[in-house]
Amino acid sequence: MKNEVLRLLKQSSGYLSGEEISSLLGVSRTAVWKHIKTLKAEGYKIDSQTKTGYRLIQVPDCLYPAEVREFLSTRILGGEIFYLPSVSSTNREAREKAENGAQDGAVVLAESQTAGRGRLGREWYSPAQTGLWMSVILRPKIVPADAPKLTLITATAVAEAIIMETGLNPGIKWPNDILLNRKKVCGILTEMKADMDRVHYVVVGMGLNISQEIFPEDIREIATSLTLEAEKKFNRAKIAGAVLNSLEKYYFKWINDGFSANRNEWKRHSVNLGQKVTVNTLGEVVEGIAEDIDENGLLVVRKIGGSIKKITAGDVTLR
Amino acid sequence: MKNEVLRLLKQSSGYLSGEEISSLLGVSRTAVWKHIKTLKAEGYKIDSQTKTGYRLIQVPDCLYPAEVREFLSTRILGGEIFYLPSVSSTNREAREKAENGAQDGAVVLAESQTAGRGRLGREWYSPAQTGLWMSVILRPKIVPADAPKLTLITATAVAEAIIMETGLNPGIKWPNDILLNRKKVCGILTEMKADMDRVHYVVVGMGLNISQEIFPEDIREIATSLTLEAEKKFNRAKIAGAVLNSLEKYYFKWINDGFSANRNEWKRHSVNLGQKVTVNTLGEVVEGIAEDIDENGLLVVRKIGGSIKKITAGDVTLR
Repeated sequence: MKNEVLRLLKQSSGYLSGEEISSLLGVSRTAVWKHIKTLKAEGYKIDSQTKTGYRLIQVPDCLYPAEVREFLSTRILGGEIFYLPSVSSTNREAREKAENGAQDGAVVLAESQTAGRGRLGREWYSPAQTGLWMSVILRPKIVPADAPKLTLITATAVAEAIIMETGLNPGIKWPNDILLNRKKVCGILTEMKADMDRVHYVVVGMGLNISQEIFPEDIREIATSLTLEAEKKFNRAKIAGAVLNSLEKYYFKWINDGFSANRNEWKRHSVNLGQKVTVNTLGEVVEGIAEDIDENGLLVVRKIGGSIKKITAGDVTLR
Repeated sequence: MKNEVLRLLKQSSGYLSGEEISSLLGVSRTAVWKHIKTLKAEGYKIDSQTKTGYRLIQVPDCLYPAEVREFLSTRILGGEIFYLPSVSSTNREAREKAENGAQDGAVVLAESQTAGRGRLGREWYSPAQTGLWMSVILRPKIVPADAPKLTLITATAVAEAIIMETGLNPGIKWPNDILLNRKKVCGILTEMKADMDRVHYVVVGMGLNISQEIFPEDIREIATSLTLEAEKKFNRAKIAGAVLNSLEKYYFKWINDGFSANRNEWKRHSVNLGQKVTVNTLGEVVEGIAEDIDENGLLVVRKIGGSIKKITAGDVTLR
């Protein structure tokens, strides 16, 4: 009901009296007043005039499900949204939700992470209300070997959302970093629970820096945000919506038509292809030219001697 | 201390007086008596003679860690053993233990499972004290795509343990069923938690039918046990030890030397190769001749038209 009150306030251009709201929603004046009070506590700035009623002045920069839903045009992503002011990590929270039966497409959103993590257990700086700290639970009918493609698909989706929402020109560093001006603006951490026959669920987590204007010294040279690059503010809920819309589009494209369309889209954004790279894998260090990603999402590197090495997972340095 | 008392009783051929035990272990006569009482409650048959002392008559057919350890010659497997009289499923229990930091090589053993599961969510009949319902937690430094090899390695290890302990001649049906006379004696369910770069942990679960003499009607035609095939009784703890010893051997061989040795061993036991097969995969049904498993553990099928199909995961019917 609180969200109904909010919707009415958003739809109205001028003041809306408590009586109008109460009769439109069929609830008491007291109930309306209580919901207004709650909305104010949540950060919504609402002007109250004794004679004329209520008017919404400002929406808080929060990822409240009601705010994100306003920008969603998805079928399954965000059907369930779990919102948390603070969480250790959204991926961790999402894994727990998934174990407890969260539905396909459920989303975990947090304003801040106290232990945000990226690939290879690295820390991810996740201060409150500056970024999109989000994890999506997916239950695709795939074998584990196909899961890494989902990382590439997510990278493509985030890159597209950034282009559409900001006009900036992001690049993807294999497999999953989104760069702006060679600095990292988004990382993706995909985790799964699986047996050998099928994936039980995948959690796709992302950390997208949106409105940070300053970074801690140790990452200042390698990290950036949308606001720093575009020199303007963005509505984080709108960006969350855009990312989810884009992710669902590429996800269904993959499930329905296979990986080739995604692969071409990914390659369009790649900053690796044709470049000299050094790749640290679990077993060895590979140096050469990144030539392609193959139909399974593996990075194809032509080594200095000319031989081809396909890489499943690794850490790429551009040279 | 209870296990120390047990060890002394096992080592002694005749009666051992309470006084001897008490002085050998440096504990009171009352403590000795309490441990004897506990051992009796656990099913150990111990004869007590007022003048002469205690003598171990019979060890219960239980998978008590102390019983299994007696047969272990491993470095890491079974370093931690979690024993449960009954559990929903040892894999589920092992996943929880792994999340809570159980060490590499930890083992979960249960006398019975109330919700034992096999591949593709199928039920696994797991009545009390008849089989080896066991899950092993491993933390190999591998990428998810390598994890299915662990299923093959485990199948090889179980087959070897069966040969050594029973003299029977098991066959492996790709990827992971162990057959005796074309009936299933053991199933393996490997599960993992992973991100795209590395496996966090793998749980290798197995259900090995040991001493069932009769099966429920619906599986009587397709299931068998070691006792049914060999027409004799086996010590389950000894078989548990043999399986773990064998698994550790092949596991280290894989980690240290790669998959090729394991692959050849697996092929030696295979009942698929050279046979007509129908394989149900997530996406399609493949019919043809099973020609090989490749260096990644994939089943190589030559289809009727002559083309080659490599299969990551699927359900094989021999024809």
